[in-house]
Amino acid sequence: MQLIDVIKENRYITGLVQGFERSHLQLNALHESDAELIRLPGQNLIMAITTDSICEEIERGMYTDPYMIGFMVITINISDLAAVGAHPVGLILNETLKHNLSVDFLTQLQQGISDACRRYKVSILGGDTNFSSRMQIGATAIGCIRTGNPVTRKGCNVGDHVFCTWRLGMGNAYALEKLLPTGDNNMSYTPIARIEEGIIISKYASSCIDTSDGCIAALDQLMRVNGFGFTITTPVSGYIDPAARSLCECNKIPEWFMLAGPHGEFELLFTVPPGNVEALILEAQSNGWKPLYLGSAVEEQAIILNVNNNMQQFDTARIRNLFYNGNSDIYYYLSELMNIEHTQVGGEL
Amino acid sequence: MQLIDVIKENRYITGLVQGFERSHLQLNALHESDAELIRLPGQNLIMAITTDSICEEIERGMYTDPYMIGFMVITINISDLAAVGAHPVGLILNETLKHNLSVDFLTQLQQGISDACRRYKVSILGGDTNFSSRMQIGATAIGCIRTGNPVTRKGCNVGDHVFCTWRLGMGNAYALEKLLPTGDNNMSYTPIARIEEGIIISKYASSCIDTSDGCIAALDQLMRVNGFGFTITTPVSGYIDPAARSLCECNKIPEWFMLAGPHGEFELLFTVPPGNVEALILEAQSNGWKPLYLGSAVEEQAIILNVNNNMQQFDTARIRNLFYNGNSDIYYYLSELMNIEHTQVGGEL
Repeated sequence: MQLIDVIKENRYITGLVQGFERSHLQLNALHESDAELIRLPGQNLIMAITTDSICEEIERGMYTDPYMIGFMVITINISDLAAVGAHPVGLILNETLKHNLSVDFLTQLQQGISDACRRYKVSILGGDTNFSSRMQIGATAIGCIRTGNPVTRKGCNVGDHVFCTWRLGMGNAYALEKLLPTGDNNMSYTPIARIEEGIIISKYASSCIDTSDGCIAALDQLMRVNGFGFTITTPVSGYIDPAARSLCECNKIPEWFMLAGPHGEFELLFTVPPGNVEALILEAQSNGWKPLYLGSAVEEQAIILNVNNNMQQFDTARIRNLFYNGNSDIYYYLSELMNIEHTQVGGEL
Repeated sequence: MQLIDVIKENRYITGLVQGFERSHLQLNALHESDAELIRLPGQNLIMAITTDSICEEIERGMYTDPYMIGFMVITINISDLAAVGAHPVGLILNETLKHNLSVDFLTQLQQGISDACRRYKVSILGGDTNFSSRMQIGATAIGCIRTGNPVTRKGCNVGDHVFCTWRLGMGNAYALEKLLPTGDNNMSYTPIARIEEGIIISKYASSCIDTSDGCIAALDQLMRVNGFGFTITTPVSGYIDPAARSLCECNKIPEWFMLAGPHGEFELLFTVPPGNVEALILEAQSNGWKPLYLGSAVEEQAIILNVNNNMQQFDTARIRNLFYNGNSDIYYYLSELMNIEHTQVGGEL
């Protein structure tokens, strides 16, 4: 089996598309980019296209606020454009609505969409509305890469440094709070896709992915696409959001769980060749943000995290496949996560 | 109320998008084009984008064959590109699958998609897969207009001639056969989107729309967008598919029902200024097809059909709104359709 298909979700997608012919206009291979990259016939411009729906999150009761659902459907799609360094052009909506939705619910849903569009300076270009017994809100985002030079998940080399745009873990913290019966259900969560940062990152990075499936899934996917591993020397506590940390403390669960769950946030995780680091940091600072240093790409195909100053290797395939097993009970999931092997590598730092 | 919003579906969409800012890159107004038309920043090329899902058709038991669902999800989207005269570039899929789908079902679904892509010489560029208790298969199609000169629903003038690409009524015939308990359920239906025809039509036509919502809905929408009416002098029996006619005969329902139902086919209905008719017909013939003449655009905002050589005016708003009332019982629908006023105008021909 290919390294990439050890992950059940990747394998499922590989199977689904195996009979499809790839387009000669497409620049990226399967699994290797957050957005599809298309060179239009006879044009220099590269289009970036991506699609994502909010479906299971509604069905499982994780997303209940219509404004948040509206804001998120734009954010999840814009984030994929950010990860390839695209300028957003617009979005097409796919709304499957229940027949009995109140006017207030619909108004808030559309307000969330509208506000997110304003935030990302982008417009809704069109869409399709269906009616069903079950709600699903999706979109397709279209962007263009003006430099003609997109960044994808592939391109990282051993020795490249790993950064993220901001603290991680809030996506899983939100999900845990929503799914635990003891959660207070009042955690606010309106993450912002990193469009401006992505455009800067695309000039300097060798690979980039968003953390929408969680940090560990992002690192694991970069590892499988590039054939290298990652040693993250910055302690987990140093790049996890304080609110996520305190949730872990209250619930007596390890902080790295906030990196392991599949409900990530919309930060960008990217690798930068050593020679580009200074220029990246300078341009980032002049735009008001600072990349968080995590670690570096290494020859050995393994993901090693610094947990309480112990360097530990995680079975990231098992972590990712755990969620795909289909058992949606949160306590089962947490107990299985607790059983996942993480081997100490080297001594205490 | 605006003429366009007399139709409940239009009104609903107008309401949904009222808070959204239009993009300055977008060339078409709301309701006025089968696909969204976007001029990319700094480019001469016009992109055409459209999205459509198969949702209610699955839920109501009208589409049960996975191969057909796959073929249709491509066709419904490619047809919207055809109606603006675009060359297809590719499609993005949105598949919401049930957890327990058999491998055989999935294989046939993907085979239908794959075969349709081959038929239209287009590729799947990417997609998103979700899992739910309810299946929904959607896509977004992207095309480009090489001439820089798209055709939309708007642009028709009084005196323009009305044509369609081929016989109509098979979409509603299929739906009726599937929904009537007496139907034999064996009617084959794999309509083909008219991409090559659309590219030729776009050179000569003043407006174009596909018949995916039925012929009467197409005529009615052109009427509302352009502010003119249509007198269709060709008898209904002259442009309805023979299989649809014989279904009407067996079930003792008027043939015009096959134009009135909301489950159309994927022919193009278009208007041509008198000076362009000869050139259109010549180019069509040299490409192996012949437009079917229907009638012409007239000053009075009304849809008049030739039913058994009687010119009759139909309350097309009531016909369109009937389906939107939400009562999905086929006998109720047929009896209500029977009650729809159609006034004789002028004498027998």
